[in-house]
Amino acid sequence: MADRHRVVILGGGFGGLYAAKALKRAPVDLTVIDKRNYHLFQPLMYQVATGSLSPGEIAAPIRGVLDRQKNTRVLLGEVVDIDPVAKQVLLKDGASCPYDSLIVATGSKSAYFGHDEWRTWAPSLKSIEEATMIRHKVLVAFEAAERSSDAVERNALMTFVIVGAGATGVELAGALGEIAHRTLKHDFRSINPADAKILLVDAGQRILPTYPEALSRKAAKSLERLGASIRTEVMVTEIDAEGVTVKTDTGHERIPARTVIWAAGIAMSDFGRQLAKRTNAEVLKPGRVKVNPDLTIPNFPDIFVIGDLAYATKEDGTLLPGVAQVAMQGGAYVAKTIAKRIKGERQIKPFHYFDKGDLAVIGRGAAVANIFGLQLSGFLAWLVWLFIHLMYIVEFQSRFLVFVEWGFLYLTSNRGAMLITGSAAAGSAEEAKALRMTAQD
Amino acid sequence: MADRHRVVILGGGFGGLYAAKALKRAPVDLTVIDKRNYHLFQPLMYQVATGSLSPGEIAAPIRGVLDRQKNTRVLLGEVVDIDPVAKQVLLKDGASCPYDSLIVATGSKSAYFGHDEWRTWAPSLKSIEEATMIRHKVLVAFEAAERSSDAVERNALMTFVIVGAGATGVELAGALGEIAHRTLKHDFRSINPADAKILLVDAGQRILPTYPEALSRKAAKSLERLGASIRTEVMVTEIDAEGVTVKTDTGHERIPARTVIWAAGIAMSDFGRQLAKRTNAEVLKPGRVKVNPDLTIPNFPDIFVIGDLAYATKEDGTLLPGVAQVAMQGGAYVAKTIAKRIKGERQIKPFHYFDKGDLAVIGRGAAVANIFGLQLSGFLAWLVWLFIHLMYIVEFQSRFLVFVEWGFLYLTSNRGAMLITGSAAAGSAEEAKALRMTAQD
Repeated sequence: MADRHRVVILGGGFGGLYAAKALKRAPVDLTVIDKRNYHLFQPLMYQVATGSLSPGEIAAPIRGVLDRQKNTRVLLGEVVDIDPVAKQVLLKDGASCPYDSLIVATGSKSAYFGHDEWRTWAPSLKSIEEATMIRHKVLVAFEAAERSSDAVERNALMTFVIVGAGATGVELAGALGEIAHRTLKHDFRSINPADAKILLVDAGQRILPTYPEALSRKAAKSLERLGASIRTEVMVTEIDAEGVTVKTDTGHERIPARTVIWAAGIAMSDFGRQLAKRTNAEVLKPGRVKVNPDLTIPNFPDIFVIGDLAYATKEDGTLLPGVAQVAMQGGAYVAKTIAKRIKGERQIKPFHYFDKGDLAVIGRGAAVANIFGLQLSGFLAWLVWLFIHLMYIVEFQSRFLVFVEWGFLYLTSNRGAMLITGSAAAGSAEEAKALRMTAQD
Repeated sequence: MADRHRVVILGGGFGGLYAAKALKRAPVDLTVIDKRNYHLFQPLMYQVATGSLSPGEIAAPIRGVLDRQKNTRVLLGEVVDIDPVAKQVLLKDGASCPYDSLIVATGSKSAYFGHDEWRTWAPSLKSIEEATMIRHKVLVAFEAAERSSDAVERNALMTFVIVGAGATGVELAGALGEIAHRTLKHDFRSINPADAKILLVDAGQRILPTYPEALSRKAAKSLERLGASIRTEVMVTEIDAEGVTVKTDTGHERIPARTVIWAAGIAMSDFGRQLAKRTNAEVLKPGRVKVNPDLTIPNFPDIFVIGDLAYATKEDGTLLPGVAQVAMQGGAYVAKTIAKRIKGERQIKPFHYFDKGDLAVIGRGAAVANIFGLQLSGFLAWLVWLFIHLMYIVEFQSRFLVFVEWGFLYLTSNRGAMLITGSAAAGSAEEAKALRMTAQD
């Protein structure tokens, strides 16, 4: 074992795990390092935030995914630095880990356009902790509204603002609409959950800007049917404890809202920045490391970057999107490259991303899809979405029941995961407020 | 509606929910108050603590359970006091809630024999937050052991002490044995999880003291097969960051252990104490309010106490145990009593507890049961256990998949819920230590 090629993978997301799995039979010593002990099925995170799924249902312990892979070791640890000359990465606790080939798949973090203080009031969907905090806020808001006798307060409690109308924002708005109009329908006596205002706010001209226009329009209609309102060409200028201020054509507008969710910007992680610095790599907007066509960093042929930390482009020069598909294909490509190099091959084709298309789900039983050039919407698109996503879940989790559960969910408006947990579970409007003060990332 | 008899139920546990459901068609205005928004299937809590089930899988939002019950309103709030003369309860936020009949089903809390400082090091299984904290500690301990090169440290990390050998402690020990010997079998490279020491410690003479002796012995054997050690007639005298000190026949003994779980004492809740004070009710060991044969408080025929806050006895004068069955039967009885009184009946039979028996599960596929006088053990007992418990889950959750999932679990050593979440997810021994400092109830 001692003389085998040492591969280190940083990050157990889609990119890292796909690379690891593709190296299963390669003659390498593989180490996968992540600061979390689980892989997260990020595309379903909004389901956790809205109480339809439990965290355990969209996460798979990395050790479990890789436990039968004898050439692989999993380390729980946070990588903070790299020495690309000595060829080792450094962990937060001071330990170091040497590599012959390194695959960096550490992803991105959420960014608040320079307003980090907004994070306090508007959590994003980047981690399980944030998702369960959002769930907490949403459910506590309805509880507090049920008990409030003040109409103004009640209005602010039942207003939910989502900033950012990409796929995450749209899916979140749909899921909230679903909750308000269907799931919680019979639950309250003083309020009608269907009175909830769900606002999807974006500075751009339309929702789902990366989709064909016709699908954007269809998605907008589906959202409106679920009671969500869309406010495009509107810029957020302030977020605080009491709500959101936006700038429109005609001036500033104040939206009182106790729940604001951030689905807008992402930025480079601290380690990504450190990696760029140590390797003198170019950093391009929106915070990605420029890589060669084979996904290595210029001058460092043994360092690969995959997923949404890499600035890699399609043949037409446009940036690859920050989606699971890109990371997975990158991971598989890089694993193959390493295996080929070990065999002595030196002629390796550049990475080619095969775009299978985009999909966004809007509430229960509706979606928009742009697959292989085909535009689908409504229930058919939703079925395609369901099938594709669940196949991946199955692959990572070997927990095929999620499948069954999802079918069941569809039939019953399941609410099994709607728990208010954490410190401020006993609810009053004051406590709901207090919660907003303490629940930071 | 205005003149209907107002029933207020405090607590959405087994007792409170059974009472509420039994009042579904009664001509009453019913209010259910709980500080949590969910009912907890407490008997499966140890499965959350050991990562086999997600919190959402053993909890059912109270609103969801009661949403079709038109005479019922659910309030999220913490009851702190009662005025039995003005006939109203007071909530923490200052609101009050008047009643004509009151059903108190607020349960008990964990107690540390006067050593509240132990709570920091030895969480109990009373809440979802504690259960997920235990899960966190257990999983982080294995992770830290994998990375530690110090044999003494590693030993302490891989020692798990459970204080209290009643049903909860026994089931927890079994589940930990299961994890160490089966679930995590292939997960680590530096440690062998099967080397973990699981110690079940109790001051009494045998485990499961309320069971027939033969079943205690069988349970002990099952536990030992799973690698758990039993230490009876041993008194815990100290718990701190580094381990546990116990007093044995021959003196004091120190057990270095980074994970200690409390499954021993329970005590009266603060509200229970307040209730006794305001009604001049007698408080009997182990912290229960003495009630009349019809479960009312002496001199307050409109206040009923059910579940493990009530000191009610069997015909032979022995105290009813603190199990779900007692609470459920009490809830149904009290609901019937209230309905009868509204009809004008005054001759109401005293509460009679019908003891269906006891059951404790030990790892996967083994249990001990004492049902209707019949003593069962092994797989057959486990099947009975499975069936009984799942029927109740189905009733509360209408989420029959848990059923399927459990079968699946049994076949696959599922680990879907083994997530290390919370602030100290990035693991090092230092962080695992730090966690122990901050993670209090």
